Amino acid sequence: MTADAADARDPIAGQPAEDLEDIALRDDYALSPKFVAMVVDAADAGDGLRLRELLDALHPSDIADLMGFLSPDYREEVIPWIPPDQLADVLTELDEGVREDVLEEVEPQALAEALQELDSDDQTDIIEDLDDEQRREVLAAMPETDRAAIETSLAYEEESAGRLMQREVVAAPLFWTVGHAIDHMRKPDEDLPELFFDIYVVDEAFKPVGAVAVSALLRSKRDTKLADIMEPVTEIEVDLDQEDAARIFEKYNLISAPVVDAHGRLVGQITVDDIVSIIQEESQEDILALAGVSDVGRDAGILGVMRSRFPWLVVNLGTALFASTVISAFQGEIEKLVALAVLMPVVASIGGNAGTQALAVAVRSLATREVSRANVLRIVWREIRVGLLNGVAIALLLGGVTWLWQRNWELSLVIGLAVLINLCAAALAGTLMPMMLERFGRDPAVASPVLVTWTTDTVGFLSFLGLAAVILM
Amino acid sequence: MTADAADARDPIAGQPAEDLEDIALRDDYALSPKFVAMVVDAADAGDGLRLRELLDALHPSDIADLMGFLSPDYREEVIPWIPPDQLADVLTELDEGVREDVLEEVEPQALAEALQELDSDDQTDIIEDLDDEQRREVLAAMPETDRAAIETSLAYEEESAGRLMQREVVAAPLFWTVGHAIDHMRKPDEDLPELFFDIYVVDEAFKPVGAVAVSALLRSKRDTKLADIMEPVTEIEVDLDQEDAARIFEKYNLISAPVVDAHGRLVGQITVDDIVSIIQEESQEDILALAGVSDVGRDAGILGVMRSRFPWLVVNLGTALFASTVISAFQGEIEKLVALAVLMPVVASIGGNAGTQALAVAVRSLATREVSRANVLRIVWREIRVGLLNGVAIALLLGGVTWLWQRNWELSLVIGLAVLINLCAAALAGTLMPMMLERFGRDPAVASPVLVTWTTDTVGFLSFLGLAAVILM
Repeated sequence: MTADAADARDPIAGQPAEDLEDIALRDDYALSPKFVAMVVDAADAGDGLRLRELLDALHPSDIADLMGFLSPDYREEVIPWIPPDQLADVLTELDEGVREDVLEEVEPQALAEALQELDSDDQTDIIEDLDDEQRREVLAAMPETDRAAIETSLAYEEESAGRLMQREVVAAPLFWTVGHAIDHMRKPDEDLPELFFDIYVVDEAFKPVGAVAVSALLRSKRDTKLADIMEPVTEIEVDLDQEDAARIFEKYNLISAPVVDAHGRLVGQITVDDIVSIIQEESQEDILALAGVSDVGRDAGILGVMRSRFPWLVVNLGTALFASTVISAFQGEIEKLVALAVLMPVVASIGGNAGTQALAVAVRSLATREVSRANVLRIVWREIRVGLLNGVAIALLLGGVTWLWQRNWELSLVIGLAVLINLCAAALAGTLMPMMLERFGRDPAVASPVLVTWTTDTVGFLSFLGLAAVILM
Repeated sequence: MTADAADARDPIAGQPAEDLEDIALRDDYALSPKFVAMVVDAADAGDGLRLRELLDALHPSDIADLMGFLSPDYREEVIPWIPPDQLADVLTELDEGVREDVLEEVEPQALAEALQELDSDDQTDIIEDLDDEQRREVLAAMPETDRAAIETSLAYEEESAGRLMQREVVAAPLFWTVGHAIDHMRKPDEDLPELFFDIYVVDEAFKPVGAVAVSALLRSKRDTKLADIMEPVTEIEVDLDQEDAARIFEKYNLISAPVVDAHGRLVGQITVDDIVSIIQEESQEDILALAGVSDVGRDAGILGVMRSRFPWLVVNLGTALFASTVISAFQGEIEKLVALAVLMPVVASIGGNAGTQALAVAVRSLATREVSRANVLRIVWREIRVGLLNGVAIALLLGGVTWLWQRNWELSLVIGLAVLINLCAAALAGTLMPMMLERFGRDPAVASPVLVTWTTDTVGFLSFLGLAAVILM
């Protein structure tokens, strides 16, 4: 069952596309390359009927995947053949970059109609992506109530619980029985969510005081009081960051949660299907940030990709050149003993590696709230000890290899000490940088990698060449 | 509402701990450092009653978090005071390393009793973590039916849908009406899940043919046929990898899905709360793997941490020493022009950086199935162009800086060309390595970083020093 009932294909109509459905998906429900090739062939042939037939065989989520696989030219060819009744669901499933492309091709009137099939959170999500003029046209073509709801929603900050929530909830007063609640839900004209998992019990001020799972409701007698079967609710404040909201869902295994305003009044709900996307997005952001790729969002073209990476390459160029100035201070030593030049990148490289390890662990611990002020010292102390232990082990190994290679035990001593110093620096920098950034309210994954590399490069070259100057010269 | 009704605190009993509950959690539902300090104080004072009072104020998920924050000594102090009726839920929420510690402290009999409150997926999850002897004792203390269920579950492969699923489902034959289904669920002696979101409609062979959301059931008239309101189901095969199952949930926004055996018969269900943990785990694994941290799982001590990092440091030492042998082939050139030693790390460093960027993007695209055979060539071609563009831009920048610094235009040419070559190598290696690993059924995030760094170090030093030997000497 989908979280969004509107997602579903018609289960009854025995479509002629039955065979196509088998071809379309692999066992793991990924689109088959064969099917994508069939779409490309149909588009090449300009065969609209065939395209419609192929798209009819797909779930809206699969059509969204297909759009991602196609190049922009083919995408444009295919868009007009998306079944109108699936357009809304396809749009909610599209990646942002692709969605912008698709939205440009759709008429405001058709879009306004499609949007009315969606819950308010999905409506807002799509409206956000329109440019100003398109947004005005689409909103004008929507009914007054929907328009007002979307405008309220857009007034909440981006990435807040308010933006994420849907306004449709099932609320029941404290004095109701199970029977009351069921009769209320059966009224056909109520503006209820498409699908829901909990009903919220509210007091006279519309503040949530408890929740009843729909399955618990189903299993209770009609004359049971809601107050007797409700369970405590975990409220989410409307201003809360979506990442914090996701963490609360994870922690308490929530399926849905009520969203309340500053006065504690129920204003909407967040359901777990939206949270799944947030969790996915946030950890992807961490992976990319740690690799020095900025989120440029909207633009998926070559220039967009370049723009997401070039700035961090330039910053890295700066830190690398800084390391070069450190090296250049020791040109005299290198001229005397060229083995220093041969070996120095090893010290910097291992340091960078160890720093990246500590950094990834720290960022991960911060993200899952495994680190807090309650245990930060214990974590840092653990990292220092790990840095020392690994440092000693690697120092012995590298010193040994160096002796075998260069037969110079002083050089072995120098490189061993340097790598030990650098691994401790790596442990400290990798652990403290993200914690400091978090403390100052910044994203711990962004900028940390550069700062850590800068530290390990500098300490690496400085300790190795500096010790060499003192001990060997 | 929690996905696991047994999680809930008693909403009625007005506990004296009311104030403690306010102190315990911050606004974002994280444990407050103040509260953790209160627990530590009580443990220091050996004040068992106070510990019990403090723990009573917490949700099982918060007790689990608390365990993570405490050092092993304090943990041991606190464990006996966990309320027995919450023990089962605390255990399901604990991180694996901590859970092992806690399980060692609990009597088999108490554990067997606690386990009986849980659905079969959570039971299996905990039983897995016991050592052989403990497992035998606990299983012996459990009722025959539970034992058989757990043993069946353990027979499925680790990280498969079969391990993840719970055997408790609500199934209804095709000819039933809504009224039949509701009456069935109200029978008090049925072994139904604690909480459920969909009921599965099955044919005579117990194969799922459709699903009805509980909220849809509630909103339909009693004489409606299930066949008329059911929607298509997305089945999950019992052998499917849990990561693939998670991807299916995400793609189709599922809340729950039926699990079927090789004959297509319904054997259990997976619910989204389990999927949320999987998604979190899998992306954490990617972050750590990309940083060269192995998953050593169980052991959270210093040696465990060291063991998760040391092997990759040694591998990195190997690749760094390989790069040194490349450099050592050019010792003559470096002696003649020591500026080569000063600048060569820059070429390797920028290459490594660009390779990491391409790698993270590729791993992310593979994880979210944005890349498939249908579009792999388009993705690789995009990366090559991005590598070329960034390469030209960085080459001009670095060539310019080199000229300003060294006033040697031939050296500028050499470093510019070398960095251009290395950025193209980085784009290719960063994109192709993970794709090749995936093609051969390996985890694309593991080992890729080392291979990419090895490539960019080697190509960086070789192209810079090699071009220098040809052009400058």
